[in-house]
Amino acid sequence: MNQKHTEISQLGEFGLIDRLTEGIEHVNASTVTGVGDDAAVLRYPDTEVLVSSDLLVEGIHFDLTYVPLKHLGYKAAVVNFSDIYAMNGTPRQITVSLGISSRFTVEHMEQLYAGLRLACELYGVDLVGGDTTSSRSGLIISVTCIGDAQAGKVVLRSGAKNTDLICVSGDLGSAYMGLQLLEREKAVSAGDKDFIPKFEGKEYLIERQLKPEARRDIIAALAEKDIVPTAMMDISDGLSSELLHICKASHTGCRIYEDRIPIDYQTAVMAEEVNMNLVTAALNGGEDYELLFTVPLHCHDKVQSIEGVKVIGHITDPQLGCALVTRDGVEMTLRAQGFNHMPPAQDNDSQQ
Amino acid sequence: MNQKHTEISQLGEFGLIDRLTEGIEHVNASTVTGVGDDAAVLRYPDTEVLVSSDLLVEGIHFDLTYVPLKHLGYKAAVVNFSDIYAMNGTPRQITVSLGISSRFTVEHMEQLYAGLRLACELYGVDLVGGDTTSSRSGLIISVTCIGDAQAGKVVLRSGAKNTDLICVSGDLGSAYMGLQLLEREKAVSAGDKDFIPKFEGKEYLIERQLKPEARRDIIAALAEKDIVPTAMMDISDGLSSELLHICKASHTGCRIYEDRIPIDYQTAVMAEEVNMNLVTAALNGGEDYELLFTVPLHCHDKVQSIEGVKVIGHITDPQLGCALVTRDGVEMTLRAQGFNHMPPAQDNDSQQ
Repeated sequence: MNQKHTEISQLGEFGLIDRLTEGIEHVNASTVTGVGDDAAVLRYPDTEVLVSSDLLVEGIHFDLTYVPLKHLGYKAAVVNFSDIYAMNGTPRQITVSLGISSRFTVEHMEQLYAGLRLACELYGVDLVGGDTTSSRSGLIISVTCIGDAQAGKVVLRSGAKNTDLICVSGDLGSAYMGLQLLEREKAVSAGDKDFIPKFEGKEYLIERQLKPEARRDIIAALAEKDIVPTAMMDISDGLSSELLHICKASHTGCRIYEDRIPIDYQTAVMAEEVNMNLVTAALNGGEDYELLFTVPLHCHDKVQSIEGVKVIGHITDPQLGCALVTRDGVEMTLRAQGFNHMPPAQDNDSQQ
Repeated sequence: MNQKHTEISQLGEFGLIDRLTEGIEHVNASTVTGVGDDAAVLRYPDTEVLVSSDLLVEGIHFDLTYVPLKHLGYKAAVVNFSDIYAMNGTPRQITVSLGISSRFTVEHMEQLYAGLRLACELYGVDLVGGDTTSSRSGLIISVTCIGDAQAGKVVLRSGAKNTDLICVSGDLGSAYMGLQLLEREKAVSAGDKDFIPKFEGKEYLIERQLKPEARRDIIAALAEKDIVPTAMMDISDGLSSELLHICKASHTGCRIYEDRIPIDYQTAVMAEEVNMNLVTAALNGGEDYELLFTVPLHCHDKVQSIEGVKVIGHITDPQLGCALVTRDGVEMTLRAQGFNHMPPAQDNDSQQ
């Protein structure tokens, strides 16, 4: 990289914020004032206001040897938008707090902000504030997103009812397989700077891992068809884990069917290459940011007609538990093996 | 410490969140739902919504050798409340994201949450969500606070006008002197666990550093006297730095008077002990979380009658610059030496 390097100490905190937020314009009427005061000022008459927060830590959530900073910024914003869409809402503002260690330059932070700003632009979200500070080790990114929803249209995890259909958008396991691919090529490269990784034929997996999108289109399609899901989440920790959340919060059981789980061809190829069970990857691989939702049975035809949505099973009485029905008709209890960034729980009942 | 230690890995992320948020009740009508979904749901008809974020990093913002976790949690919440009060608003909800390294146990996190919850209880704020993840080194705390204000009553930094009076609440420099005292005793103890630090006669300084309070009382007093400040900030980085922010945002200059700056007796004693210029400490020492605000000249008598508020100077035309007038009448240009947690800016004009 033959780029300009400005030590952050040359600008100081406020100089850095000035630089990073220069020219940011607001697109939402609910944004009254943004960066540059003790707090941003928002205004929402007669709507529900939604708030979602995420903390990303270098070495835990991302590896800068293969994640470009611009992609990281994009993803940090989009995963929060995804949380707001998963409430059937619209993201409107984000605040971004950064912890920055001394190896990062102003240009690095500008790349990160370029990604944040691109995501905000594409999704129509305003960047309204945050905090910038030092870190002793690596980069820390904390994003809080504020959104809104029509009064009465917010969809919680807890509304699933017996016989409701379980639906997912897109396909599952591809972001996880993208991570496997990136990790494999990193291991092969062994630090060689001129190494050219082999991604041919697997570009989709890389994109899913490095540049995920939030499913705004699905939320719009549901609204257009006048469908309000009974429960909804985005899939960040894996289908199993999220479905168990919905069933726990809704006091229900569920059955999903192996042959209904949407899996992309590239995901299948990669799973075979790394000798991993494909269904396990689709059930437990995280970071797909697809939507998982339930709708009443009578919505079957309408929901099936939405491109990119698949019905994968149905909600049951709680005493039936939560299970995957395999292709040969065997019921396997769903477990939250999960893809979260904490040490695994010993007790699978502990998920929220 | 003879306390129970539960490895966080025994509970897992969701188990930990369940444990930490057990029994949390909401007190604000604007809180529709809290922890346990993709996002919290808030509702604010006909009001301004305020959002403030802060990121605290171990080794940068706090030293756990002398900061008890409960105090840390309390302070992490209160400093965000202070930002909302500084907008003339009322804090209503917080989200808390934690990055936790492996040396911390569940009991440690419960202590931290005990402080967060105590602060929320005392200030009438609801804890509505957040994120919990691993960290490779130390503890990371990211707090976002959402508040509201009466429409039209939000006070920005940018509204100060020529001839306005400059006011501060409480006294300045004491939190900074508390930090000096804690650092001194830590150095003297040299890691001896049985060491008993000497805090007699300086309890106020310790309290100001470890358990700061947000000046809700001043906001209430201003409302009672029907005073809406023209500009306001809380003093987190030091009086000089904050006053320069207000003057920059308001396109004004200012004069403040050395003999008007409120300083506690204990602060003066400590400054002498550590051979530090007292006025420098009061101007640049951070973390006081007092309010700095400007009011129109005609409010002089009303604002003087509020206990704990002192008029320290006045706003001027911008071409007069920003200066401190010493006891002997000399004008010293104000500089943002600041107490921020970034390397110092080389250019003093770079503050926002």
